[in-house]
Amino acid sequence: MSAPAGPLAERVRQRLDAQTKPRGALGRLEALALQLALALEDERARLQAPQLVVFAADHGIAAQGVSAYPPEVTAQMVRNMLDGGAAVSVLARQHGLALTVVDCGVAHDFAPRPGLVVAKACRGSADSTQGPALTPAQCSAAMAHGAALVRGLPGNVLLLGEMGIGNTSAAALLMERLTGLPLALCVGRGTGVDDAGLARKQAVLQRALARHANVSEPRAVLAALGGAEIATMVGAVLEAAAARRVVVVDGFITTAAVAVAAALDAQVLARCVFAHASAESGHARWLAVLGVRPLLDLGLRLGEGSGAALAWPLVESAARLLAEMATFDAAGVSTEVAGRVA
Amino acid sequence: MSAPAGPLAERVRQRLDAQTKPRGALGRLEALALQLALALEDERARLQAPQLVVFAADHGIAAQGVSAYPPEVTAQMVRNMLDGGAAVSVLARQHGLALTVVDCGVAHDFAPRPGLVVAKACRGSADSTQGPALTPAQCSAAMAHGAALVRGLPGNVLLLGEMGIGNTSAAALLMERLTGLPLALCVGRGTGVDDAGLARKQAVLQRALARHANVSEPRAVLAALGGAEIATMVGAVLEAAAARRVVVVDGFITTAAVAVAAALDAQVLARCVFAHASAESGHARWLAVLGVRPLLDLGLRLGEGSGAALAWPLVESAARLLAEMATFDAAGVSTEVAGRVA
Repeated sequence: MSAPAGPLAERVRQRLDAQTKPRGALGRLEALALQLALALEDERARLQAPQLVVFAADHGIAAQGVSAYPPEVTAQMVRNMLDGGAAVSVLARQHGLALTVVDCGVAHDFAPRPGLVVAKACRGSADSTQGPALTPAQCSAAMAHGAALVRGLPGNVLLLGEMGIGNTSAAALLMERLTGLPLALCVGRGTGVDDAGLARKQAVLQRALARHANVSEPRAVLAALGGAEIATMVGAVLEAAAARRVVVVDGFITTAAVAVAAALDAQVLARCVFAHASAESGHARWLAVLGVRPLLDLGLRLGEGSGAALAWPLVESAARLLAEMATFDAAGVSTEVAGRVA
Repeated sequence: MSAPAGPLAERVRQRLDAQTKPRGALGRLEALALQLALALEDERARLQAPQLVVFAADHGIAAQGVSAYPPEVTAQMVRNMLDGGAAVSVLARQHGLALTVVDCGVAHDFAPRPGLVVAKACRGSADSTQGPALTPAQCSAAMAHGAALVRGLPGNVLLLGEMGIGNTSAAALLMERLTGLPLALCVGRGTGVDDAGLARKQAVLQRALARHANVSEPRAVLAALGGAEIATMVGAVLEAAAARRVVVVDGFITTAAVAVAAALDAQVLARCVFAHASAESGHARWLAVLGVRPLLDLGLRLGEGSGAALAWPLVESAARLLAEMATFDAAGVSTEVAGRVA
């Protein structure tokens, strides 16, 4: 994205340049601080009550054997997250992030419990090789659930996570249709299918694309090829962006939701911080197509919001450095010797 | 480095593979967790009381105009760090890291104050274009100071930081002599000299190298071309490694200290976590020569330990994930479908 202009951007740049460090010495954190300040319309980029939300759903396409794990793992992992044993639970605890798991369309009925929000658009989406994954009504309901959920959350930061066996397939389908890239560049191993599994996954996805060959409008693509957790996330991201919340994007599946939201509202990307480049093969390419750079590159391929949680301290650091560092003047530190500075 | 072997490594790998995630899905954090467990000889890699130590000193070579900032900035920034206004102060506060600043050889006498340790090997090193930066006695004293300092610190983690106008010059000289790479690949813009400044810096460093053409033993190189904060860090790193502490390495100058320490003790690198690839031009290359990969790549070029502090939450996450994640068995989550896993 081009360098932001305007009086607020100018004030933030002056603030950064007056701080006790060589100009630009904090590298990408300075650009991030500026982005946060502009998103929040706050010169000090004050982040409040960050909310990590894991959107969960089942996928009809999983019946085609596209995942290394059986579909019941979606519900089992929802429980594990709420019990505190999943990676995202450990990381949320470490960073004091409020963790909410949303049943957007899991094929299981959970007993009520703290931290779980039930906002089902379906009990598992339909198999997109046979018809649309979601009906238009289900897709609209999911998006409305996501928007309502965000309106009910405190704070000004939303960190995205997801869980859904089969959802790298749905995300790859969305990527193919939204970017126009060849399917082979969009499909990866997900939770870890082997070479034969990858070939099968690719063939299944090819059938789904053929089944919905004429669908191109973003909402229609989302319904035909997406899934309930992705549609709920799209609604959540649109609402968060409209309300000037910062959105921290995790991996491949959350990027799919953000890409749909960005296709519907051009303001979305400016609110989004991309946490990491996933090892899922299409992800880095999709980020490049979106013109964004992730903060981390650690070979993660777990989802759940684990990458968003891992990047969270960096986001917080960017904001704190902007708000809390001393200036050369205030600290009585000498500035550069004239003529020596790049 | 090759994959670690032995019973502890095996137990850690089994632990990681039993956790509720696809095998290897936490990417480089799994390798990091293993490294921490082996360094600490603790299957759960329990990190205790992490200590961020900023080693500060002045450099005679600064008189040759190799830096964009005047030498008095070293003392001014030491004060700023202790006052809480420097980047490293903000980050240490954010992460609850104990911050200690060590006067290893600043050309200024500080009044005693909390957080400051005075362990002067000199009042500024000598100009290495004219003679050795440190006498053998000064260099030994600095190394002994570093070792004693670490022995007196609680916990099992040392995060390295530094401050010293002119110290990218000293580090570049050490890099040239230790790696044998051409000087041009070792010299960068430091705090931000312009093209003319860079050419002058390179010419000055060439003179220093010519002055000490026959010096090659690591301690002798350290004394001839290094500086008091680097020598103190070498002693600190050797002591930390011997005592099985984890060492979190910051940017170019702390890497110089670690490289000297590693040349003296082959066990050092296994204890070191490299926080980030600095924008200082020689740093990424030096890390490659050492055969190590940094966690972050954010274009930082500030020093102070800022990169080490920024990477600290990732180090902590690796340890916590290893210790706290549930197993498939305990969480009642189904494992992969046989034959589908890569």
